[in-house]
Amino acid sequence: MLAVLNEVQQEVTPLLGQGTVAQYIPELAKVDPNQFAMAVTLTNGESFGVGSFEKPFSIQSISKVFSYTLALRYYQDDLFKRVWREPSGDPFNSLVQLEYEDGIPRNPFINAGAIVVCDSLISHFADPKKALHDIMIFIRECCDDHSIAVNHTVAESEMQCGFRNLALANLMKGFGNIDNDIDQVLQTYFQQCSADMNVSQLSRSMLYLANDGVDPISGKTFISEAQAKRINSIMLTCGHYDASGDFAFRVGLPGKSGVGGGIVAIVPGEMSIAVYSPALNNNGNSLVGTKALELFTSKTGISIF
Amino acid sequence: MLAVLNEVQQEVTPLLGQGTVAQYIPELAKVDPNQFAMAVTLTNGESFGVGSFEKPFSIQSISKVFSYTLALRYYQDDLFKRVWREPSGDPFNSLVQLEYEDGIPRNPFINAGAIVVCDSLISHFADPKKALHDIMIFIRECCDDHSIAVNHTVAESEMQCGFRNLALANLMKGFGNIDNDIDQVLQTYFQQCSADMNVSQLSRSMLYLANDGVDPISGKTFISEAQAKRINSIMLTCGHYDASGDFAFRVGLPGKSGVGGGIVAIVPGEMSIAVYSPALNNNGNSLVGTKALELFTSKTGISIF
Amino acid sequence: MLAVLNEVQQEVTPLLGQGTVAQYIPELAKVDPNQFAMAVTLTNGESFGVGSFEKPFSIQSISKVFSYTLALRYYQDDLFKRVWREPSGDPFNSLVQLEYEDGIPRNPFINAGAIVVCDSLISHFADPKKALHDIMIFIRECCDDHSIAVNHTVAESEMQCGFRNLALANLMKGFGNIDNDIDQVLQTYFQQCSADMNVSQLSRSMLYLANDGVDPISGKTFISEAQAKRINSIMLTCGHYDASGDFAFRVGLPGKSGVGGGIVAIVPGEMSIAVYSPALNNNGNSLVGTKALELFTSKTGISIF
Amino acid sequence: MLAVLNEVQQEVTPLLGQGTVAQYIPELAKVDPNQFAMAVTLTNGESFGVGSFEKPFSIQSISKVFSYTLALRYYQDDLFKRVWREPSGDPFNSLVQLEYEDGIPRNPFINAGAIVVCDSLISHFADPKKALHDIMIFIRECCDDHSIAVNHTVAESEMQCGFRNLALANLMKGFGNIDNDIDQVLQTYFQQCSADMNVSQLSRSMLYLANDGVDPISGKTFISEAQAKRINSIMLTCGHYDASGDFAFRVGLPGKSGVGGGIVAIVPGEMSIAVYSPALNNNGNSLVGTKALELFTSKTGISIF
Repeated sequence: MLAVLNEVQQEVTPLLGQGTVAQYIPELAKVDPNQFAMAVTLTNGESFGVGSFEKPFSIQSISKVFSYTLALRYYQDDLFKRVWREPSGDPFNSLVQLEYEDGIPRNPFINAGAIVVCDSLISHFADPKKALHDIMIFIRECCDDHSIAVNHTVAESEMQCGFRNLALANLMKGFGNIDNDIDQVLQTYFQQCSADMNVSQLSRSMLYLANDGVDPISGKTFISEAQAKRINSIMLTCGHYDASGDFAFRVGLPGKSGVGGGIVAIVPGEMSIAVYSPALNNNGNSLVGTKALELFTSKTGISIF
Repeated sequence: MLAVLNEVQQEVTPLLGQGTVAQYIPELAKVDPNQFAMAVTLTNGESFGVGSFEKPFSIQSISKVFSYTLALRYYQDDLFKRVWREPSGDPFNSLVQLEYEDGIPRNPFINAGAIVVCDSLISHFADPKKALHDIMIFIRECCDDHSIAVNHTVAESEMQCGFRNLALANLMKGFGNIDNDIDQVLQTYFQQCSADMNVSQLSRSMLYLANDGVDPISGKTFISEAQAKRINSIMLTCGHYDASGDFAFRVGLPGKSGVGGGIVAIVPGEMSIAVYSPALNNNGNSLVGTKALELFTSKTGISIF
Repeated sequence: MLAVLNEVQQEVTPLLGQGTVAQYIPELAKVDPNQFAMAVTLTNGESFGVGSFEKPFSIQSISKVFSYTLALRYYQDDLFKRVWREPSGDPFNSLVQLEYEDGIPRNPFINAGAIVVCDSLISHFADPKKALHDIMIFIRECCDDHSIAVNHTVAESEMQCGFRNLALANLMKGFGNIDNDIDQVLQTYFQQCSADMNVSQLSRSMLYLANDGVDPISGKTFISEAQAKRINSIMLTCGHYDASGDFAFRVGLPGKSGVGGGIVAIVPGEMSIAVYSPALNNNGNSLVGTKALELFTSKTGISIF
Repeated sequence: MLAVLNEVQQEVTPLLGQGTVAQYIPELAKVDPNQFAMAVTLTNGESFGVGSFEKPFSIQSISKVFSYTLALRYYQDDLFKRVWREPSGDPFNSLVQLEYEDGIPRNPFINAGAIVVCDSLISHFADPKKALHDIMIFIRECCDDHSIAVNHTVAESEMQCGFRNLALANLMKGFGNIDNDIDQVLQTYFQQCSADMNVSQLSRSMLYLANDGVDPISGKTFISEAQAKRINSIMLTCGHYDASGDFAFRVGLPGKSGVGGGIVAIVPGEMSIAVYSPALNNNGNSLVGTKALELFTSKTGISIF
């Protein structure tokens, strides 16, 4: 496994320098683009890493997987009334579909959907602080590491330029699909997105999705088998915005990207993979990260198809 | 003239009860739907009224004509970079076109456009209070009546349910087309919309548009002849949202409606007309008001075409 | 009048060379772009012309005014069930709105609307040849000149590249809004569009719209006063595709442009104007023609506003 | 296996009668809605069937998998310039996205994409008859059954009401993405869609997609391993139009539905499944067929996730 990861690293190194670090969040725009890290955690607990695998970065939209897991746990099928599970065919922050479809987001992995999920968690606890606390506790439990924390500088930076997300939230509130105060919902959302993790922690934390909802190391059940499979299916069809089909096509695994440059991918029954490289392609997904996963699945023959 | 107005009133009275008062602004939803008033002011200063022509109501979007007049005066053609003058083909509060067209509203009479106009006035005075004050001073000057005021209960009511307008403003801010703080812009906008006027005041106040920019009674020049004609042209093509073509077709005059149930119409060189009846048709324009104007132009043969 | 026309010609001559001749119809792409002609016909019968005012060109979409006049005459208000009278906010050949609005075109001056009008005329005569014959007879009667004819080379050229129009017609047929065979409808439509006229003939032919439906020279009534005013209103709100608002704003008159480079404009009660210059602006309307009309109304102070 | 299929049949039988048979193709509208059949073929060659598993029906859009396989074989990655592999988020026959995206269809399984694929095969053979022949030969080879044929009555029936598809094809031709004569392309397309097969033949024929491109029974290689996986990924993300996410969520397998009421699903490495029941749900996919597949994967625990 380590040999494969080394090979992948070697082959993607010349690509560092291509793509662009996300510009719209000032704090993230400062990041060095030429970084690369990749880690694999097997369901038997073994783990492997290459590159800067211990260096934390902003997980951004990858956090949507954790919050959606919690919302599914608390609301089960009732959640689907407020957020669907269809690919959107549009960029991650589009308002068009939302207006045509009465404020119901297509899936929990576009911004509008993740904001609704966040709102549902605040309603569940009747308190935004408790909701954020619950998300962070869950993330720490998933990766068995209590050091994981929100980067408040990044959260603040996002809040100050989050006009598009404010537009989404207000539009949905106008349609009656946001229950709580918009500022509280968005502050919670931006903080959740601003958790810092490294690829080792990330690959470790998603192992429950590779093992039917049960963390194979701790033995804890986080979610039912059916729900775990369903989250994987939504990651496959919707995990990379309007490039989800392309990711499925090239990598062949359920995955979720974040604008910070991270991507996680799940090999059901076998392992969880995390990769990091901050420069993004035109669709807003890590350019080198996507390539690394493509190489990894080509070399190993791993694919769900 | 009074005979014609009486005839019109008689013919529309049986229609009172059709349509629905705007529901989305709680304070306006309480209004008695069975009201009717109509007033005409000629360029020679004569005026005529029927129905409750002295009863004030919320002018709402009709206020956009006043604020646009001011913005044109201060910015001239520079204003067109921030707000176009094309019909939108969409409802008054649609986000779709705005997203496709990079946050530049189609015209100053849809909400997005009026919000940009309001933002431009705040920038001109570098102060939201002064901007609102300037709008109110202008309205009072236009109708030579210093009693006209903002209804703060209505403004408050709109602010509390203005999620769609917040979405529009945030979307445009994301595109860089709003300069000032969004809450200040919207508060100014909602207050401007919440001015109370009666049909006599309204028809009097728009006389400058029937007289090439000069108030024929006071002799004051409010705007250039070319600008007055251009405001009329935008009222004709865009004054009734996605029913502008229908209004031009049926009434044949430049006009602007408000969701409070008022409509003004201009007969260039001759007169200004205002009508009020709060129940709206499916396009959000006064049902009986539109019918009254249609009857008025049929009976008098008045039309710009 | 001739002095004004000469002045206008002088001022626009330096602009010849800007813009681009329509490329998508091969036969029209060959036209010399540096042509200019302008003609005015007064309701008292006097007429004036400058430039190549006797040189025929392809009237293209200007023909839609004639066919719509006939369809209104035969179907009156029933026609509005099949084609509305609202600005579209979209380019002349867009399919998007048509799909969202169940195959009912926004107005008779976008291609989809004119195709429906053409279909209605074929149904009226139960024969495409008679329908085309009726349109041509009407055009000749309007300009009192029996020499006007279809340019079959142009019609053929359009037919061979009319894929977008075929798409529109098939989409509407799928929605049940085309009754006749699509090839027959489009052949009739392309032939109607391919009539050749010069600006003198064009301005003469539209005089009935400046005179409440009655040709003031022959005294013949072509359409009712109300219908004439309504056609003018649709020309104002919809006559220049997604630049209709801009034309109303700059020129201040009802008008209809054609991709061949012609524009007609109506001054109700006074005159009919036609202009020709084949190079188009970005919206597909004659660049120099629009400028000439703008100068003409500025110099004369003519405007319906 | 047969026990499971029997259980599934028993549980879905009460649902027969729900949904509606496709109405827009007259010949298909006549079909008895209360039919059910299901068949499984394992990669070891064993096969199982319940219900009317020997009764042929119209495969319709399922045929797009065969034609896409051939086009990928002939053009490899060049094909992606003409048809993408992203979910569309829109119904199977929408024109909206196609207009915004310059005539490039989102994927080969919406109608526009399949029409482009068909056009590419005609270009490859420089002959529509040879292209259709090649498709039919391939289908027969895939299921090792030379009796499979086009139902010309159905093809004729589709041709006569295929206005929407004509609109799609003409729109794409206008954008330069159709090379051949539109009537020939559509006739070939409608004939390909009108092949009749039963569920046994269908499940047998798709076995190569469950076995990395090689038919495990005959040993013939139809396509490369990478290409087979990629077709599966597109089936997963795009195989059920704007309900693809829902199918992935509920069934957890790559699948392709047809408006005739058939669905195929692939279990990589294990089996191919086909189901038939002609009454459709709101998204145009077999209602009972989808339910049967959902039950099958629940009972067996089979899922790619």
